[in-house]
Amino acid sequence: MAILPFTQPRYLLPLFLGFFQGALLLFFALFVTFDEPSAQAEDANLVAYQIYSTFPFFQDIQVMLVVGLGLLLTFLPRYGLSALTHNFLLLNFSMQWALVLQGLIHHFHHGQVHLDLHKLLISEFAAVTVLISVGAILGRSSPCQLLAVATCEVPAYLASEWVIVNCLGVLDVGGTITIHVFSCYFGLGVSKALFWAGQKPLHPKETPTPRSDLMSLVGMLILWVFWPSFVAVLCQPGDSQHRAILNTLLAMSAGAITTVVASSLLERDGKLSPSHLQNGSLAGGVAIGAVANMAMPPVAALALGSLSAVTCVLGFRFLTPLLGRKLALQDQCGIHNLHGLPGILGAAASAVAILVAPKDTSRSYVSQLSPSGGNASEVVGEQQGDGGVSRQALCQAAGLAVAIGASLVAGLLTGATLRLPCLARPPERLCFDDSLYFKFQDQDESLGAGSTTEEGALALKEHV
Amino acid sequence: MAILPFTQPRYLLPLFLGFFQGALLLFFALFVTFDEPSAQAEDANLVAYQIYSTFPFFQDIQVMLVVGLGLLLTFLPRYGLSALTHNFLLLNFSMQWALVLQGLIHHFHHGQVHLDLHKLLISEFAAVTVLISVGAILGRSSPCQLLAVATCEVPAYLASEWVIVNCLGVLDVGGTITIHVFSCYFGLGVSKALFWAGQKPLHPKETPTPRSDLMSLVGMLILWVFWPSFVAVLCQPGDSQHRAILNTLLAMSAGAITTVVASSLLERDGKLSPSHLQNGSLAGGVAIGAVANMAMPPVAALALGSLSAVTCVLGFRFLTPLLGRKLALQDQCGIHNLHGLPGILGAAASAVAILVAPKDTSRSYVSQLSPSGGNASEVVGEQQGDGGVSRQALCQAAGLAVAIGASLVAGLLTGATLRLPCLARPPERLCFDDSLYFKFQDQDESLGAGSTTEEGALALKEHV
Amino acid sequence: MAILPFTQPRYLLPLFLGFFQGALLLFFALFVTFDEPSAQAEDANLVAYQIYSTFPFFQDIQVMLVVGLGLLLTFLPRYGLSALTHNFLLLNFSMQWALVLQGLIHHFHHGQVHLDLHKLLISEFAAVTVLISVGAILGRSSPCQLLAVATCEVPAYLASEWVIVNCLGVLDVGGTITIHVFSCYFGLGVSKALFWAGQKPLHPKETPTPRSDLMSLVGMLILWVFWPSFVAVLCQPGDSQHRAILNTLLAMSAGAITTVVASSLLERDGKLSPSHLQNGSLAGGVAIGAVANMAMPPVAALALGSLSAVTCVLGFRFLTPLLGRKLALQDQCGIHNLHGLPGILGAAASAVAILVAPKDTSRSYVSQLSPSGGNASEVVGEQQGDGGVSRQALCQAAGLAVAIGASLVAGLLTGATLRLPCLARPPERLCFDDSLYFKFQDQDESLGAGSTTEEGALALKEHV
Repeated sequence: MAILPFTQPRYLLPLFLGFFQGALLLFFALFVTFDEPSAQAEDANLVAYQIYSTFPFFQDIQVMLVVGLGLLLTFLPRYGLSALTHNFLLLNFSMQWALVLQGLIHHFHHGQVHLDLHKLLISEFAAVTVLISVGAILGRSSPCQLLAVATCEVPAYLASEWVIVNCLGVLDVGGTITIHVFSCYFGLGVSKALFWAGQKPLHPKETPTPRSDLMSLVGMLILWVFWPSFVAVLCQPGDSQHRAILNTLLAMSAGAITTVVASSLLERDGKLSPSHLQNGSLAGGVAIGAVANMAMPPVAALALGSLSAVTCVLGFRFLTPLLGRKLALQDQCGIHNLHGLPGILGAAASAVAILVAPKDTSRSYVSQLSPSGGNASEVVGEQQGDGGVSRQALCQAAGLAVAIGASLVAGLLTGATLRLPCLARPPERLCFDDSLYFKFQDQDESLGAGSTTEEGALALKEHV
Repeated sequence: MAILPFTQPRYLLPLFLGFFQGALLLFFALFVTFDEPSAQAEDANLVAYQIYSTFPFFQDIQVMLVVGLGLLLTFLPRYGLSALTHNFLLLNFSMQWALVLQGLIHHFHHGQVHLDLHKLLISEFAAVTVLISVGAILGRSSPCQLLAVATCEVPAYLASEWVIVNCLGVLDVGGTITIHVFSCYFGLGVSKALFWAGQKPLHPKETPTPRSDLMSLVGMLILWVFWPSFVAVLCQPGDSQHRAILNTLLAMSAGAITTVVASSLLERDGKLSPSHLQNGSLAGGVAIGAVANMAMPPVAALALGSLSAVTCVLGFRFLTPLLGRKLALQDQCGIHNLHGLPGILGAAASAVAILVAPKDTSRSYVSQLSPSGGNASEVVGEQQGDGGVSRQALCQAAGLAVAIGASLVAGLLTGATLRLPCLARPPERLCFDDSLYFKFQDQDESLGAGSTTEEGALALKEHV
Repeated sequence: MAILPFTQPRYLLPLFLGFFQGALLLFFALFVTFDEPSAQAEDANLVAYQIYSTFPFFQDIQVMLVVGLGLLLTFLPRYGLSALTHNFLLLNFSMQWALVLQGLIHHFHHGQVHLDLHKLLISEFAAVTVLISVGAILGRSSPCQLLAVATCEVPAYLASEWVIVNCLGVLDVGGTITIHVFSCYFGLGVSKALFWAGQKPLHPKETPTPRSDLMSLVGMLILWVFWPSFVAVLCQPGDSQHRAILNTLLAMSAGAITTVVASSLLERDGKLSPSHLQNGSLAGGVAIGAVANMAMPPVAALALGSLSAVTCVLGFRFLTPLLGRKLALQDQCGIHNLHGLPGILGAAASAVAILVAPKDTSRSYVSQLSPSGGNASEVVGEQQGDGGVSRQALCQAAGLAVAIGASLVAGLLTGATLRLPCLARPPERLCFDDSLYFKFQDQDESLGAGSTTEEGALALKEHV
C-alpha cells in the first residue's frame, strides 16, 4: 500500500518529546527528591502500610488507563496500534507534565519537592483528562496535535481543579466534575475549533468490524472491573472508602443491565449496538464519582447508575447525530455521551444528596469526605449549620458551571492552535489508518509487499 | 448478510430486564441500607483492614468472571461479542437476583439488610453457577432463555448450598461441590430438557479458528492466574488462607503440565488440542476447592491437580462423544469435563483427606475451616470424636449426592420451561452468529453492505 | 493444509513430562511439607499480614509472566497459540524444577522442606530466566528442545545466582544482573550453538501483521503496568520498597517516551516501528532493577530509563543486523536489546550509584537493601568503611562478568545438546506455524477442510 510522503514535520514529534524529556531531567535534578528514610521502626511500618493500602489501587488504575482504555479505543479496525500507542504516549507525557507543573507550584511555596506515590497518583488523574478529551478527535489527529492538546489541557485542568476543589470546596471524590465533565467539554471545544468547517462524511475506515468491536468490548470490561478502585482511591480509609466501593459496584451493575434494556429498545429488531454496550455500561461509574462516599442509601446508587446508562444510550442515539448536524460537532468516541451527560447527572445528584441528607450526618460526612482531606473543605465543614447544607449544594452547582465554562473556553483556544500547519494534521483520506504512523515490515522487506500480494492474501486466508 | 426478521419477542428481553431493575430499586429502597459509620477510630481501622484483606481478592474474582471467563467463551469464531456480552449480562443479573433473594430471607429473620462487600461476594458466587451452567447451551440459546436459566438457578443454588453447608456441614471452602458440581449437572439437565430430540449435526460456524482459539486461551490464562483468589477468598485469614493459596497454586501447576501430557498422548501425531488446554489446565483448580485448606501434605495437591487434568482430557476425548451418541446430550463448552468430573474427584478427595488426616489436627481444622465460619460447622466441630471423622467424611459424600440430585432435577425442570416459544430460541441455521443479536454499522449505513462487498473484502484483506 | 508426518519423537514430550511429574510427586511426598499451623493468635496475624503484603505482588508477577509475556510473544502471526502455550508450559515446568532443586539443596542442609509463598516466588524467578532465554529461538524450536533448555538453565541459574548474590554480595534487588543479563547471554549461547551453520533467510511466516503486532503490544502494556511489582517484591517493606516502586515507575515512564523519540528518529518518514515500542518501553524496567532501592535521586531513575530505551532501540536498528551478519547470530525476539544491553547498563549504573552515594547513607542502604536480606550481605555491610564502597562497586562489576561468562558457557553447551535429533527440531519450512503443534478441528472433522475451501474462506471473509 503506497503512502505518499507526508513527512515535512517528521522531526517535530521526536524533537518536541526529546526536548521535553531533557527539561524534565533538569527539573528533577534541581528540585525533586525522595523522602528521607524513616528513622524509626514505627515510621517504616507506616510507610509499608501506606504502600499496601495505596499501591493496589494505583496498579488497578494503571491497568484501566493503559490496557482498558487503550483497548476500548481499538474499535476502529485499522487504527488499533495507533490508538493503543497514542493513548500510552499521552498518558506518560501528561503525567510527567503534571508532575512538573505541580512540582513548580509546590517549589515556590515550600522548596524541595518530595516525590511519593500520592503525587504520582494526582498527576495520573491530570493525565486522565487528556486521555478522555482526545477521544473526540481520535483518528483524525496526528501525535503532534495530541501532544499539543496535552500541553494545554494539563495546566488548564490543574487550575480548574484548584478553583473547584480548593476555592469552592466542591465534594467530588471520584472526579465526576473535575475530571469527567471538564475533559468532555475540553475535548468538544478542541474538536469544534479544529474541524470548524463542517461535518465530515463517513470515512470508509471508520466502521468497526465485529473483531475490532470485540477488542473494544474487552477494554470496556477491564475498565468496568477496576472502576471502583478509580473512585475509591482518594477516599479516607475506613467507612468512607467502603461505601465508595459499594456504591460504585452497585451503580456499575445497574448501568450494565439498563444499557442492554435501552439499547435493545432503541435499535431496530431489538438487537444491541456494540457502541452502546462499550459506553453505556461505564456511564454509571462516571456519574457515581461525585456522590460515592456520601451518606445516601444504596438505592440511590442503583438509580443513578441506571439513569446514567439510559442517558448515555439516548445520547448516542439522538444527541450525537443532532450535534453533528446542527453544530457540525465531531465526537468520534462519543465522549459527550459517556463523560458529559453522566457527569452533569452526577453533579446534580451530589447537590440533591447534600440537600436531602439527614441533618445529623451531613456535617460529619462533608468534613470527613473531602477528596483532598485538606483544610479548605474542613472550613466548609465548620460552616455547616442550617444554611451550610444548601450552600454546599450551591457550591456543587457552581463547580459544575466552572468546569463546563473553563473547559469549553480552554478547549476552543487549544483547538485553534491545533490548526497550525506544523502540527501535521493528517489528510482526510489517510485518517483512521495505522500505516500513516507505523512502519510495517512488509513495506520494506524483500517479501514483496507482503500480505497485499495474491500469495500473501492466500496464505493469510488459510490461517484466519 | 440478510437476516430474516426474527423479531416477535423483541420486546421481551428489555421488558423483563426493565421490570427486574424496577423491582430491584423498590426492594433496595425498602429493605437495604449500609452499615452505620463506625463511631470509634478502632472500628474505622477494622473496616479499613477488612477492605485491604478482601477487596483485592474480590477484584481478582471480578477479573476472572468478567474478562477471563468471557474470553474463554470466545472460542466460537463468530460468536465472540455474544459470548462476552451474555456472560457479562448474566453475571450482573444473577448477582442482583441473588442479592434480592438473600436479602429477602435475611429480612424476614433480622429486619433491615446491611449491605457490605461480603454479601456482594456471596451473591457473586451464586452468579458463578449460572455462568458455568449456560456453557452447556452456549450459542444455541437466546438471551431470554439465558435469563430464564438464571432466574431458576439462583434460588435452586441458594437452597442447595444452604442444605449442603448449613444442614450437612460439608467442608467446601472453594465451592467444588456447592458451585462446580451443582452448576455442571444443572446445566446438563437444562441442555437435555431443551434439546430433547437428539444430537445436532456439527454446525458450520461451530468450529474454532486459530484466532478464536487464541482469544479463548488468553481467557484460560487469566482464569488460571487468579484462581487462587477464588479458592482462598472465604478462608479464615492466616494459616488456612496461606495453605489454600499454596495448594491451589500447586494443583494448577501440576494440572497444566499433565494436560499437555494427556492431550499429546491422546491426539494423533502427538499434537495438542486447544480445547484440552483451555479446559484441562483449569481442572486442578476445580478439584482442589474442597480440600484446599485441609491438613494434607503438599503432594496431595499436586496429585489431585494431575488427576483432575487427566480426567478432564479423557472426558473430552471419550465421554463427551459417548454422551452425545448415547444420551443425545449437548455440552457445548464441555462443562461436564471441566466442572463435573473434577468436582466429583475433589469431593471424593475431601472425604479421603478427612479420613486419613492425623487425629490431633482433624478437630481443629474441621471447626476452623468451615466456609461460613458460622455456627453450624462449629457444632460439627464439637461433635468430632472417634466417630466424628468418619461421620464428616460421610457428610461430604452426602453433600455430593445432594448437589448432583438437586441440580439435575432443577435443571431438567428449568430446561423444560426454556422450550416456551416466547423465549425466542434461535433457529438452528442462525445459531453461533453474533449478527442475530448485534446490529453492526455496516448493515445499516450507506457504505453499501460494508465488508461483504468486493471492495470491502479487498480493503480488509490488505489489513489482516 | 497437509502437514507431512513429523512424528517420530511424538512420545518424547509426554513421556519426559510424565516422568518429571512422577518424580516431582515422589520428591514432594518424601521431603516437602507445609509450615506447622501457628499456635498463637499473634503468629496467625503475622501470617495474614505476610499474605496481604506478598500475595498481590505475586499475582501481579503471575499476570506478567503468563498473560503479558505470553501475549508479547504473539507477534508471529501464525504462531500465537504455540507462543502462549510453550511460554505457559515452560513457566510451570521451570518453576517445579527450581522447587525440586532448591528443595534438594535445602534438604541436605536442614532436613524437611517447608513450602511457603516466598519459596514459590524464588522458583518463579528462576523460571523467568528460561522464558527470556527461549525468546532467542522462538518459532524455530520444538517443545522438547525448549524443555531441554529449561532443564539445563535452571541449575545454571541457581548456581550463578548463588555465586553472584551470596559469594560476591552483589546488590541486585530487581534481578537486572542475576536474571536479565544471565538469561540473555544464555539464550544467545543456545541460539549460536543450535543454529551454528549460518544466518537463516527471512521466513515468509516470520513477518508480523498489524493484528499480531496489536496483540503483542497489549502484552507489552501488561508487562509495563506490573513491572514495579516485579522489581519491588523482594525489597524490605517500608522505605526501600516505596523507593523501588517509585524509581521503577519513573524509569518506565521515561523509557516509554524516549522509545518513541528514538524509533521516530531512526525509521524512515518518522514512523514508529512496532517492535521498537514492544521492547524499548520495557528496557527502563530491566535496567532499574539493580539500583531501584538505592539511595539515589529520582533524576537518576529517569535518566537510566531514557538511556536504556535509546540503547534498546539502537540495538534493534544496528546491532541485531550486525550480529546476524558477522556472527550469524539468530535472536528472534531481540532479547539482546531488551535484556542484554539494558542489563549491562543497569549493572554499570549500580556501581556508579554506590560510588557516588553520600557517605553517611551508603553503609545503611548497603546492609539494609540486600535482596536476600541474609547474612552474606550483612557481612558486606559490616566491612563498609573507606574502602568498602569502592569494593562493593567492584563486586557489582565482578557479578556482571560472572553472569555473562557463566551464561555464555552454559548456553553454548545447552545449545549443543539441542542438536540431538531426538529433540525434534522442526524443519525450516514448518517453522513459525501453529499447525505443527496443534490439532485444529477442521483438519479432521467432516467439514471438508474447513476454512481453506472456497466456501469457508468466503464465510470467514464476511465476518472479519
